[in-house]
Formats: sequence, C-alpha cells, structure tokens
Amino acid sequence: MARPVKDLPKDRIADPDALFALCDRLYPICRSITGPGVRETLAVIQESIELSIIEVPSGTPVFDWTVPLEWTLREAWVEDPSGTRVIDVADHNLHVVSYSTPVDMTLSREALEAHLHSLPEQPDAIPYRTSYYAETWGFCVSHERRTQLPKGTYRVHIDATLAPGSMSYGECFIPGTSGKEILVSTHICHPSLANDNLSGISVATHLAKHFANAGELRHGMRFVFVPGTIGAITWLAQNEDLIPNIISGLVLSGIGDSGPLTYKRSRRGDGLIDRLFEHHLAALPNANIRPFIPYGYDERQYCSPGIDISAGCLMRTPYGEYPEYHSSGDNLAFINAASLAESAEVCARVLQDAQCVDRYRNLQPKCEPQLGRRGLYDNVGGENQSKDAQLALLWMLSYSDGHHSTLDIQQLSGIDLTALNHAAERLIASDLLALEPFGAI
Amino acid sequence: MARPVKDLPKDRIADPDALFALCDRLYPICRSITGPGVRETLAVIQESIELSIIEVPSGTPVFDWTVPLEWTLREAWVEDPSGTRVIDVADHNLHVVSYSTPVDMTLSREALEAHLHSLPEQPDAIPYRTSYYAETWGFCVSHERRTQLPKGTYRVHIDATLAPGSMSYGECFIPGTSGKEILVSTHICHPSLANDNLSGISVATHLAKHFANAGELRHGMRFVFVPGTIGAITWLAQNEDLIPNIISGLVLSGIGDSGPLTYKRSRRGDGLIDRLFEHHLAALPNANIRPFIPYGYDERQYCSPGIDISAGCLMRTPYGEYPEYHSSGDNLAFINAASLAESAEVCARVLQDAQCVDRYRNLQPKCEPQLGRRGLYDNVGGENQSKDAQLALLWMLSYSDGHHSTLDIQQLSGIDLTALNHAAERLIASDLLALEPFGAI
Amino acid sequence: MARPVKDLPKDRIADPDALFALCDRLYPICRSITGPGVRETLAVIQESIELSIIEVPSGTPVFDWTVPLEWTLREAWVEDPSGTRVIDVADHNLHVVSYSTPVDMTLSREALEAHLHSLPEQPDAIPYRTSYYAETWGFCVSHERRTQLPKGTYRVHIDATLAPGSMSYGECFIPGTSGKEILVSTHICHPSLANDNLSGISVATHLAKHFANAGELRHGMRFVFVPGTIGAITWLAQNEDLIPNIISGLVLSGIGDSGPLTYKRSRRGDGLIDRLFEHHLAALPNANIRPFIPYGYDERQYCSPGIDISAGCLMRTPYGEYPEYHSSGDNLAFINAASLAESAEVCARVLQDAQCVDRYRNLQPKCEPQLGRRGLYDNVGGENQSKDAQLALLWMLSYSDGHHSTLDIQQLSGIDLTALNHAAERLIASDLLALEPFGAI
Repeated sequence: MARPVKDLPKDRIADPDALFALCDRLYPICRSITGPGVRETLAVIQESIELSIIEVPSGTPVFDWTVPLEWTLREAWVEDPSGTRVIDVADHNLHVVSYSTPVDMTLSREALEAHLHSLPEQPDAIPYRTSYYAETWGFCVSHERRTQLPKGTYRVHIDATLAPGSMSYGECFIPGTSGKEILVSTHICHPSLANDNLSGISVATHLAKHFANAGELRHGMRFVFVPGTIGAITWLAQNEDLIPNIISGLVLSGIGDSGPLTYKRSRRGDGLIDRLFEHHLAALPNANIRPFIPYGYDERQYCSPGIDISAGCLMRTPYGEYPEYHSSGDNLAFINAASLAESAEVCARVLQDAQCVDRYRNLQPKCEPQLGRRGLYDNVGGENQSKDAQLALLWMLSYSDGHHSTLDIQQLSGIDLTALNHAAERLIASDLLALEPFGAI
Repeated sequence: MARPVKDLPKDRIADPDALFALCDRLYPICRSITGPGVRETLAVIQESIELSIIEVPSGTPVFDWTVPLEWTLREAWVEDPSGTRVIDVADHNLHVVSYSTPVDMTLSREALEAHLHSLPEQPDAIPYRTSYYAETWGFCVSHERRTQLPKGTYRVHIDATLAPGSMSYGECFIPGTSGKEILVSTHICHPSLANDNLSGISVATHLAKHFANAGELRHGMRFVFVPGTIGAITWLAQNEDLIPNIISGLVLSGIGDSGPLTYKRSRRGDGLIDRLFEHHLAALPNANIRPFIPYGYDERQYCSPGIDISAGCLMRTPYGEYPEYHSSGDNLAFINAASLAESAEVCARVLQDAQCVDRYRNLQPKCEPQLGRRGLYDNVGGENQSKDAQLALLWMLSYSDGHHSTLDIQQLSGIDLTALNHAAERLIASDLLALEPFGAI
Repeated sequence: MARPVKDLPKDRIADPDALFALCDRLYPICRSITGPGVRETLAVIQESIELSIIEVPSGTPVFDWTVPLEWTLREAWVEDPSGTRVIDVADHNLHVVSYSTPVDMTLSREALEAHLHSLPEQPDAIPYRTSYYAETWGFCVSHERRTQLPKGTYRVHIDATLAPGSMSYGECFIPGTSGKEILVSTHICHPSLANDNLSGISVATHLAKHFANAGELRHGMRFVFVPGTIGAITWLAQNEDLIPNIISGLVLSGIGDSGPLTYKRSRRGDGLIDRLFEHHLAALPNANIRPFIPYGYDERQYCSPGIDISAGCLMRTPYGEYPEYHSSGDNLAFINAASLAESAEVCARVLQDAQCVDRYRNLQPKCEPQLGRRGLYDNVGGENQSKDAQLALLWMLSYSDGHHSTLDIQQLSGIDLTALNHAAERLIASDLLALEPFGAI
C-alpha cells in the first residue's frame, strides 16, 4: 500500500510571491491556441516541473474536431489617415483578433468599422476576441479610441501566417500506486490576460511541483496545460485509454482575483472532487458552490457524456461576472499574491485529501476484533488516552464493509481523511484491514 | 419525429363563456351511472369532439365487479297526507336516491322517515345520495322541508326500471407518433351537480377539442368520459392492452369553483404528471399539491397497484371540504367562467409540456461536437447572439446520456420544455442527437 | 397468521415501583464479567421470567476473542500505616479494580500510588475501573480519601481467584409465527451501578414478562442478559445461525436517570427499530435521536459489519455525559421509578408496533375490489360510518404492492400500525390480501 502524502506542511505550498512572479513573467507573451506563444509559455513552465511537451500536427482529427492550422503573428497595426499607428499589437497583445488572417490594405473608416471590436460600456478597455473557426481578421480597441478615429483612408496590416504546423500542449504526470489518477487541467491559450488564465497556470505549476516532491503517491496526478477547448479535446482523443483510470478532474481558471472562491460541480455533481470541495469550502465563510452547467471552461469536455469524468472547476469571481473579464482590465493589477496563494492552498488540501480516499475491507468483520491484545486499545477501561486515535480505528473497522470509502467515513465521523488513513495503516499492520481494489467512491 | 404541438396561443385555449355554457347546458340532465342521462350527456359532448360511445352490457364482468343493471327513471315523488306532492324529482334531480328501486305505496310518516335523507347542518340543501350496489329506494330533501312534513299517511311513487341494458361511456383518442399516450379522465354520472362534475366534463371536452386541432402529436392523448368508479374499472378491464402505453393520467373533478387549484399526486408520487403539475403550479401563488391517498375520484382505480398508472387528480377546493359538496348547493352559481378557464389553461400547459417530454441520445458524446461548423454556434468568441438558444443546445447534448429526459433537463437548466424540444430538433437535423424509444421518464 | 398482540393496556406495562424494586434488589451484588455476582443476578431475574442460563467455559474461542478466566473476589482492602482499613470492598463494590489479580503485600505510600484510581474533579466519588485483559491489580477511591492517605507502609490485600471456570449469560426467548425475531440486549456485568445498568436489566426483565403474557406473537422476541462486550460477542459467536432471522435489535442501557430519552440509531440508520423509535419519540418533546457511532454499548457488536443487525441503543442521558457515570454517584438515588416506567413504556410501544410490521400482497390488485358486497364498505354513498376503518382497508389494498410494508403504510397514511394490522386481518378473511414471506422492511 502506498505511503500517503504526509500532512500539509504548516507553511504554504507555494510562496505567494512566487505564484505572482510566474504570472508576471508569462503576462507579456502573445499566446493563442497554437503558435510560438504557447511554446514559449510551456518552456517557462518546464523550468519548474518535469513537463512533456506534445506537438499535434494540424489536420489531426480529434473526435468531431480537427487540429487547426498554426497561427504565427508577427505584426498587426492600423494607420489612420495621417499615417499614425493608432492601433498596434506591439502596444497590447489584445489589439488583434486572435487567429486573424493576414491582411494588408487600405480602406475607408466606414469599411474598417466592421473589423473593429470595442466595449461601449467599458470605454477604456480593449476587449479580447478570437476567431479560430471562421476565417476573418479584426482589431480590438478601446471604445474611447474607436470613437475618436476620424474619417478618411486607413491602412490595416496583419503580418501573420495561418499554415500547417502543430498545436502544442504540456503534460506532467506523477505516478501513484493505485493505477488511478486525478487530472488537473488549465488552459494556456490566452494572451496577456492575468486572471484568465495565468492564475490557473501558475497554481497548477506550483501544485505539480509540490506533489512531485511529496513522497510516494497513492493515486497518480496528471497536470495538463492545454489550449482551451481544442486542447482538452485533443488530449482526450489521444488518451482515451487513460480515461477509465481518472477518478476525478479539476479545471483551474480565474483564481487570482480578490473575489471569493467559487467551485462549480461536475456534471455528475457528486464525484470525488465535488465532495472534497464541499468539505473544504465549508470552512471558508465566503466560498460558494455552483451546480454544473454545460458552459464554461474545459470541464465541458471532461464532463461530456461520452467522457464522463467528474471534473469540477475552481474559480474565484466566475467568468463573465466581473467587468474586467476578457478585456485588458484583466491585467496583473487585477490579481494578487494572497488570492493566488489561498487558491493554491485549497487545491493542495483537496488533492492531498484525494490521496487518502480509498475503500478498505474489515478482515475481522464479526464483532469488534480485540484491539487491546494488539496494542491498539487502552486496557484499563475508563482511561482516555488517545481516544481520538482509538475512535478512528473503530470507525474504520465499523464501516469498512465494502460499501463505504474513507470519504464516506470522514463524512459520517467528522474525522479527517489523514487521520483515517493513519488508522487504516495501523489496522493493516495488524492484519485487521485490507485495501480494496479502487472502485467508484 | 413528431413535430410537437406549437406554443400555446396567447389567447386562452377555450373561451371562458364557452366553458361555462357547456356546464349550463348539461346541468338539467338527470345522470346516473347508467341510463338515458349519460347517453344524452355524451351526445352533447359529441357535438364538440369526435367521441366514440361504447355500450357495455349489464352483467359484463369487469375485474372484481359486474356492470350493473341499467336504471331508467321516469317519475319520483312523495305526496303528503293532503295529496300535495311535497317532494318531486321533477323539481330537482337530487330528490331521488340514485338507483332507487321502483315503489308505489302508502306508508306512515314514521315509516317514510327511514327513506328520507337530509343535511341537518345545511337545512336548505338537498343532499346527493346513491345506492348503486344495495337495492333500496329513498328520497333526498332539505332538512327544513323534512322537519315540516306532518304526521299522516304518505304516498311514495318511483316509476323506474332497473333492468338489463348497458352502461355507456365516451372516448376520444388523438393519436401521437411515439406509441405512448396520456390519459385524461372525468366522471359523467352525477346529476345536476355543477362543480362535481360538469366542470370536469366541460374542461376535458375543450382540451380534447384543442389538442385535436393542435397539429401532429408526439404522445397520443386519450380522453375518457366515464361513470365514476364502475366506468373507470370497466374502461381499464376492457383496455388492459393499452395500459402499458399510458405514460401518465389526469383525473379532472371539481375545477369550476372559486377556490385555489389543488393537485393530488399519483400513488407513485413522481410520475410525469406529478412533476409537470409541480412545475406549473409553482408559478401560481395559491395553488397547492397534496400527497396521494387511496380515496377520492377515479385515480383510485388508475393508481391501483395492479394497474399502476401515475394518475393525479386536479381539483380546486377538494371534495368534502366545501359545504356545497354533493348537495343542491353545488349548482351553476357555485362555479364561474374564470375558474373554469384557469383550470383549462393550466391543464393545457401541462399536457402541452407532456408532449415535449422525451429522452434523446447524444450521437457525438465524446467532448462537445463542433457546433460552429454546423451553423449552431457563434464563430467569433465573445459575441452574445442567441446565447439562450446555444445554451439549450449545450444542455441537450450534455444530458442526453441515456439517463436524463427533457423533463430532467428542464429541471436542471430552468429552460422550458418547448425550447429544449426546439433545440432537440435542431440537433437531430444536424445528426447530433437521436430520439430514444420512450421509457420511464 | 399470528393474532397480534393487543393494544397496550392503559395502565403501564410494569408498575414503576416494581421496576425500581428490582434495581434496588440487584444493587448490592458485586458483578463482573464472570463469577458469582453474575450468576446471582441471573437467578434473581429468573424469578420473574423463564430464563435459560448458559455457562461458557473459560478459553472458549469466540470470533477474535477468548472467554476469559473466571474471577472470584472474596476480600480486597488496604491498611494504612496505623493498620486501619482505609479502603475496603466490603464498604463499596467499586473499591477494587474489577478483575484484579490476587495480591498480599506491604508497600510504601509512593509505590501504592500507581495502583490507586480516583477522580480529582469529583473528589468524593469512587470511580469504576476494570482490567479484564491486562493482568494487574488496583483500588478505586475517592480523591478526597486518596489525598488524605499519609506517608508510610501500607498493606494491600486482594483475596481473589482468576482461574478457569465459565462465563454466564441469560436468555429468554418468546417465539413468534413468522420465524423472525427481535433481539433485546442488556449488559449485566457492572457492580453497584444503578443507571448503568440495573435500569436496563430491570426494564428488559419487565418487558420480557409483559410479552411472554401478551398472547401469540408474530415475530419472536429474544431477551439476552449478557456481560458487556465479551458476552455479546459470545452470544453472537454461539448463535450465528440465528442472526439472519433477527429483524432488528435493541440495546438497553442507562434508562433510569431523569434525563430525556435518547435513541442512538443502528449502523444502517434506517432499520425497523430506527424507524419505530423515530415515530414514537417524535411524540415526546424532549426526546432526541443520535446517529450511530462505533463506540458505546453492545450495539457495537450487533452492528459490526459482519453481523450487521440493525440494533439501536436506548439511553436517557448518554454515557459519559453525566458526572455520575461510572462512579459511585451512579447509585439508587440517581435513578427513579417514573423514568424507569417511561422508558419501559416507550420500549413496549416500539416492540408492540414491531409485532405489526409485515408486508402483504393485494390479491385483487387491478382496480379496487368491490368491498361493499363483502360487507367491508358503506353501500349508501355519502354516509360516514366507520370512515377510518374503511380508509385503513383502502390504504392496505393500495400499497400492498410487494414494495411497501405496514411500516411504510403507517408513515404514508398516519394510521397506526395496530389499525393497519386489523385492516389486514379483515382483508385476509375476505381473500383480498395475503401475508408475504418476511423480507427486509
């Protein structure tokens, strides 16, 4: 049996400043679902953890989808009638619609209008727009700037390549002894957006580093860093054989802002990950839990009925519910080290608890075994030494009946999973308990 | 696949005045469980809908029962010692105990007493009494009148026939494409009682007319107009082969008074009809829902354990909870057009929703299918066009996993059944969804 | 079919004074898990009920345990330096640690210290201590006395035998017709402790006497009087063949104090006994129900996963939650006749109801059978005679579908089990209902 990860150390699993610093370092990179920005991002992550980087050629069929052409952007700007560059991706990565086709032409202010995107209600923010699956081009600009653009002839210039290449994603697997695993997934395709999703990338990276150094694991942990939607679909299509081994999944997104933690349940609603977040968020007064909806991040793919992983999503303020969402307002000032650290801490506790979830069988199920002669019980009735430890033994024996997991026993007894796991180890050492093959929890 | 009934028109499914007018027209007829009154009633209904009228011979065994002799009443009166007709069925149909045996005799005031029925607590109301299964005769009279009858010799005269004949009932079936059906049942055996049950007869007739003209149905709808108890038993005994096809049933009774709507659940408690009434009555502040009890109207028969249709009963003020119940107080002044119309409207909405309840299978269940290339999804991320329609597609895909019906998806998503049904049609047209054979919902 | 026990008589099942008197009589006896005190106790119980007394030889293996040596205590005292007997079991049975090995020696005050037990927080109480499974000796004393013992040389003297013999327990079985039975268990191993557990012994004895005289039983009732833990384990080990027949179990302990009734659920949580106590305690404003924990009295053994009887435990103030617990404070002044009588009454009602729990099958399940021609129903509609009795018939017919027990029907209908049982008898007499073999309730 695996020696479980030891109790979380009292200090944080990652230094808050280090969590922020990784976001800071990745912020300037111009990412999209394919291309050099993703590769650069994965290379940075690789400095912290053992990351395999997989390249999937354009045109590869992945379930109902096809890996797209690779997009390489060099320049993108608009010159006004006076020849001034009034919009330039060199100033902000969000200025160009991601996956824009190359263009170099002059056109009237009126004709330009159809290719501009802005947010009238947030006049100073640049929106984030993509067009992965419809060939077009466009610029994103603050509404303020847009309304100031005078009449006349404009030059638009996008120097980009949309050509066969590959889509990149990263994967870090830490094996466990049970043959089962927990999936942690985060998307890596957004340019210069801090909360969505440098926060997720930074926390996932630090979690992977933490668990890689935590000792032998019971359940494997697989961290995937994938372009949104197409990346998750590609990973699933190329790893269908692994799916039956995945106990639960966790998607990390938007966990660096100052809002309260928000957990969105998996489609099943009562998977391992759901039950663990229920437990751990109950202790946080502002945290909240939402039911599954089939809209959001890559939990959409992991939870799809033919895949059916119980994958939840951790957020702070949910997507679309803060004005900075998908705009230049989602910058480094919008996130903070303390929020990143709290998010990382809660994830670590949940994932640590997941390591302790198992099902055992009482090998002496007829009446209580005589714990006293095995040194597991006080021999003078009425003494109170190590009552809690004794109770944990009794709970494990009483409910290790083939029906209850340690997670069930935690919920019935209120004894934490680490203590139950420790009781299980003592009982196994006394031949009173045996680990069951891992089944549904 | 059936094109479902379109959204309910904004105007009411039936004109309130027309609903009341049918009650008014049927009120004077002297009905019982058999005989000319029932036939006359069915003939009136037949003017509005395609009604088959079935005659079942007296003596036909129906499960544990036998179709009774046919009762034909011509005259029934009591003359007091002075020769005045003090009680006369010609004045009010309720004056005679239904199924009274013929009698023509003189007897003392004291001997008469055993054959009189009145309501001491409602001294001016004539009670409604029947004696279908014990041969006797009797008169119903206001308590006021009863106490005024002087001593002396009375003549009682009931000119009636109790003889082999038949029991009549009516049936209107509107077929659907699923091979399944919804049963709507109302009793037609009460004489001159408006709420119980001309209200039910009128609403059922107008619902049948509405759905007969509503376009192709998914699930068939069967409206039965039966004498209470023995009629429902007879219908079930003669149509046992249809029972497995019946998804749910609805018994209509007492839905014309001014009390709030009251739905009584089926014996199962969570059948299709129960869940739909839960949903629709939640929107009505005064409406209420009661658990099943094995006492009441013909849901007793439909829900009996060997039949086990999930049949609920819609009422306004429940039977026995208004003083006018089963007395001459339940007259046309006790019901009103607006109540009839609201009852009809809620039934129509429930039955319309029932048409949209089905179970589908996602044909591309591994990850989300690429809706964009099928024209089912915005291609420029961030735009909000037709978000609701897109969400309906995603909900249908996500939960059409063989376990969830559209009713389940409605409850999870809050999206109404008509919109889900529309999403299903679009997905079927794109080969992304298939209708499953109808199973338990 | 068994004629069920008739309604509880209006007077109490046992005279409060008789309940107290039995405690009073048993209080002076020096009990342990084996030895003459247990035999003397069982002999007193045998005066009231037909009790089989079983002797199990020391060394008999019982599951993971072994029946211990028999302990016979003759004398146990401590003399202070002046030769005064400052601690003497002749003064109070609690003064010696139960199962102390024989000793006769002089030793210093300091060396004596390790063999003394007292309660600093309750300075005038003598604690109750045992050492069944570790060979040692000791004395229990009030903390007040302990601190007053001067320095000097003490003589300790325990004249006891720990030798092969036997462990005794008592059993009273009252057979029923179903082949199933209810187990009532109470422990008999505590010396001079009134609430824990003379209260349980007295109530169990009076319940056994009551049901032995109550007429033919449907379900057998087995009362066992066993030494705690080892006695229950021994009974189970020697009666494994009976376990499948046990519907539910009830452990009685600490039910004589003035605290409110407290029921602790079985491990399953929803066994017959749990549901009956839920029902009966709901009527008592102060009573409360607790979930199962694998610590407490012999329900630990009965509920162990390889035995899995749904056995709950009735207490008043739970063990460990009153300062008098396991000390000389738990004396006859701590219990009272009224509390004993209320405990006995509630148990009797629960056990009486258990007699009425069964599952039936409606033999005419298609529609309602015609009750009228069988004399089970009013023939003139509208009359209200014996409405409740008729309703009980309808509930039994409606839910005797193979899925619902009379306990389920009680919960659905609110009709008490005795009335449902009476309805069942009437329907069986009319060939409308049949008793099903007893299965899980």
